[in-house]
Amino acid sequence: MSEQAKIQTSQAVIVPNETFLQTADQLKPVIHRKETFPTQIVEVSANVNAIHGWGVAPVGGVESLTQRIFGKGESMILDFGDHRVGHLSFDVKPIGSPPDAPLKMKVTFGEMPVEMAEPFDQYEGWISSSWLQEELLLIDVLPQRIELPRRYSFRYVKFEVLDTSPKYRVSFDHIMCTTVTSANAEAVTPLGHSDPVLECIDRVSIRTLEDCMQDVFEDGPKRDRRLWLGDLRLQALANYVTFKNMDLVKRCLYLFAGVPDQQGRVTANLFIEPSIIADDTYLYDYSLFFTATLYDYYEATNDRITLNELWPTARRQVELALERLDQNGIVRDDDTWWSFIDWHEQLNKQAPSQGVLIYTMKRAFQLANEVDSEYASILAGRIREVEALTVHALWDPKLRFFISGAERQVSWASQVWMVLAEVLPAEEGRALLMRLLEECPSVGMTTPYMYHHFVEALLIVGCKEEAVAQIKAYWGGMVADGAVTFWELYDPDNKNFSPYGSNLINSYCHAWSCTPTYLIRRYGL
Amino acid sequence: MSEQAKIQTSQAVIVPNETFLQTADQLKPVIHRKETFPTQIVEVSANVNAIHGWGVAPVGGVESLTQRIFGKGESMILDFGDHRVGHLSFDVKPIGSPPDAPLKMKVTFGEMPVEMAEPFDQYEGWISSSWLQEELLLIDVLPQRIELPRRYSFRYVKFEVLDTSPKYRVSFDHIMCTTVTSANAEAVTPLGHSDPVLECIDRVSIRTLEDCMQDVFEDGPKRDRRLWLGDLRLQALANYVTFKNMDLVKRCLYLFAGVPDQQGRVTANLFIEPSIIADDTYLYDYSLFFTATLYDYYEATNDRITLNELWPTARRQVELALERLDQNGIVRDDDTWWSFIDWHEQLNKQAPSQGVLIYTMKRAFQLANEVDSEYASILAGRIREVEALTVHALWDPKLRFFISGAERQVSWASQVWMVLAEVLPAEEGRALLMRLLEECPSVGMTTPYMYHHFVEALLIVGCKEEAVAQIKAYWGGMVADGAVTFWELYDPDNKNFSPYGSNLINSYCHAWSCTPTYLIRRYGL
Repeated sequence: MSEQAKIQTSQAVIVPNETFLQTADQLKPVIHRKETFPTQIVEVSANVNAIHGWGVAPVGGVESLTQRIFGKGESMILDFGDHRVGHLSFDVKPIGSPPDAPLKMKVTFGEMPVEMAEPFDQYEGWISSSWLQEELLLIDVLPQRIELPRRYSFRYVKFEVLDTSPKYRVSFDHIMCTTVTSANAEAVTPLGHSDPVLECIDRVSIRTLEDCMQDVFEDGPKRDRRLWLGDLRLQALANYVTFKNMDLVKRCLYLFAGVPDQQGRVTANLFIEPSIIADDTYLYDYSLFFTATLYDYYEATNDRITLNELWPTARRQVELALERLDQNGIVRDDDTWWSFIDWHEQLNKQAPSQGVLIYTMKRAFQLANEVDSEYASILAGRIREVEALTVHALWDPKLRFFISGAERQVSWASQVWMVLAEVLPAEEGRALLMRLLEECPSVGMTTPYMYHHFVEALLIVGCKEEAVAQIKAYWGGMVADGAVTFWELYDPDNKNFSPYGSNLINSYCHAWSCTPTYLIRRYGL
Repeated sequence: MSEQAKIQTSQAVIVPNETFLQTADQLKPVIHRKETFPTQIVEVSANVNAIHGWGVAPVGGVESLTQRIFGKGESMILDFGDHRVGHLSFDVKPIGSPPDAPLKMKVTFGEMPVEMAEPFDQYEGWISSSWLQEELLLIDVLPQRIELPRRYSFRYVKFEVLDTSPKYRVSFDHIMCTTVTSANAEAVTPLGHSDPVLECIDRVSIRTLEDCMQDVFEDGPKRDRRLWLGDLRLQALANYVTFKNMDLVKRCLYLFAGVPDQQGRVTANLFIEPSIIADDTYLYDYSLFFTATLYDYYEATNDRITLNELWPTARRQVELALERLDQNGIVRDDDTWWSFIDWHEQLNKQAPSQGVLIYTMKRAFQLANEVDSEYASILAGRIREVEALTVHALWDPKLRFFISGAERQVSWASQVWMVLAEVLPAEEGRALLMRLLEECPSVGMTTPYMYHHFVEALLIVGCKEEAVAQIKAYWGGMVADGAVTFWELYDPDNKNFSPYGSNLINSYCHAWSCTPTYLIRRYGL
């Protein structure tokens, strides 16, 4: 998820459901640990052809590590060869006279070369610099094994010796990262795809998901390390076809259901430490995704006990969303709401949110058929009604696109969500998407999260070839640009794009970007 | 001690005496802990009349602490009201929305206001910046109690919030320092002096000693936190009249005797962690002080077992020192030796070192009389001989001063050490010191360590009044300039003096400066 939403605050009063929270607590996952090691010593230097303008070149093997001796102002960059989430530890020993002053050093972690190259103290982005991953170490006693207590997310790590004394220098050895994840790699069935590009994209997707699976499904292990509903829904879908950790999805659903506000509304995200706290951010689409995620979970597990327990929460999200419709049956677009949809400043959220609503109502209807037949019949009528009003109010027959908001904005997001909501017959949805590709309206897509929905929309109207082409162009583009996990943000036309004002702060292992494995495996691409 | 000596390195081979090291290990002191708290919130601002140009003014009581809320870029300075050596801990809690980014903050410790006012990153002194006391903290989970593992030496502590997020700020509470020392304050007899200035100087001396008494006698708790023989000798003297921790002196003597080089020479200083290591610095005067310190210890304790065990080490230092005399009976002054004496770039070390030798020979003679009558008779002859040669070679009858080195330098240090060595009859020594005060040769004294020896020289020739005047002017000057513990360096005529190129790095609680309590109590001032 994004920071934009976080500026919103509300006066919600939380009414905890202790039974749900206890259930969630009992589902705390086992954390798998693995020792991983750097694969080479590298240098990062300016390269206009490389992502963010920084290229990486090997300068030595790790077997030469103990021969390298570092004095004041000297540094090295280690490449772990792949993305790692975990705890760094290393030996540091003095070379020369006994150390007559502490060792002062800095350790900087980077998912990308840019984090090794551009100094953090020049960061002027608008979200907190506290996300930039670094440690200042003052080490009084040498030799010593250093075990950094914080969890870091990185591929590269820079060791900088800021000061020793004229009498000694230092060397490093046994550098390792003990990775942590609640994903069990052995549960994954190899894809064995004949197309090496899709095979590679599948692998990078799975690694992205793996590194985001911790005590809960996190959005990104570098930033924000938080359980967001929009990310959870996509992670759960990718998880069902890979790690199959059903209990982790169940845990997250119970957590969200455990801290509703006084209206029964589910928050957009949760803080897990020091205790479960519902963030004071509520998003129209994200609350509805509780229901959609429960639907997907039930489809994957047939876990009727959980469905029975969580159904009232799922139903409540739909009821609350329906309360926001105006007399024309369209979600009110004013200053009193927030909906996420995509990271796009100009995007009007009305029509895509209307799409999310209908999409969710149809899934709620199917769940209601299982456990709440009375509400099922209510919903059946409401779905017909809202769909009709939606086409009436938001479909522009001249433009042949759905419009959104007072300015009648034509965006990609609106068309995509109307197709996902199956507001039009499949053939018309397909034509709409083809027209979208042809006419390319200017309010486009900015996140892998939105690209996922576009590709899935293509797939449900049968445009498999176009879907594969989109996956290869977009996620394949990240791989070509060096991704070992998929990124929070990627704009092929503006690779320096950051909604935060700096490439340093973007997350380069981000849950909402992990879905190609789901798309490939679920739709047999 | 100083850094100058540390640049020296030697190829000494250490021959450990495991029995001695075991004895030292069994004498590890009990560490006394006490919870101490800040007394006020202050600000530090430019003030030409204050030491180093920085004045301190209160801006609030600590009872207002929890009302103070800190966002990005905000800071406060706490005054603990006295010097503290120990571990800082505090509560930090978020104010506002749940923290959606880590807290990034810096904690800076200062013995003096200058350390709160001048940024450490502009430090350009020539000893390691790693001594500057700071911590960069990245705190993932809030609220939290933070317990900094390192031991710090300070009166002031600055809390700077470097970043939070737009959604929250923080407040601090229950800030405390758990002080550590091996000194037992209850063992000190109150002085109850009629002169409030001497009473105050005695108290500040004792606090200085207390804060330097840790696992061993350290030179300074901020820097270098090391066991130096020159400091140990003075600390032991002050300890005998205050805390009376005889075992700590004994432990330190066994430590030095436990790691001689292959010649039997005692190092100038020891590293204690991770294990006992003899530094590769050997100083002519400091090695001799092993013998002088054993003499003082025996005088204070009458501990004959220790004397018997350590006598061979003590005797060996004298033998090695005598080997350095040339055919004229004067210590050879060339590039193959180091002697400390004082922190003065122009000072020639020959004559003062000769004084240290004779001073020590006389004490070794008395010890030998107890345990080694054969060497006692050898020494008796050598003392007479060396004294005569010294006067012959180094006394300039025209100048009526002792001269030192090829340039025939007249320094304060040379006169002081010749008086302490009692090379001249008391009356002549007294006249020499009076002449010194009158003529003020330009190669003066720069450290409290040297001032101590000057004052003690005055006292042994009966100049009590002048001694008190010196103590009041010098140590009293530090008190007037705000000292709550005595400083490593103090030049009343140049209060910004630092041999390291920056006031930031000086130590402001330094063992060799703690002796006024000894001088006052021992000589009944």
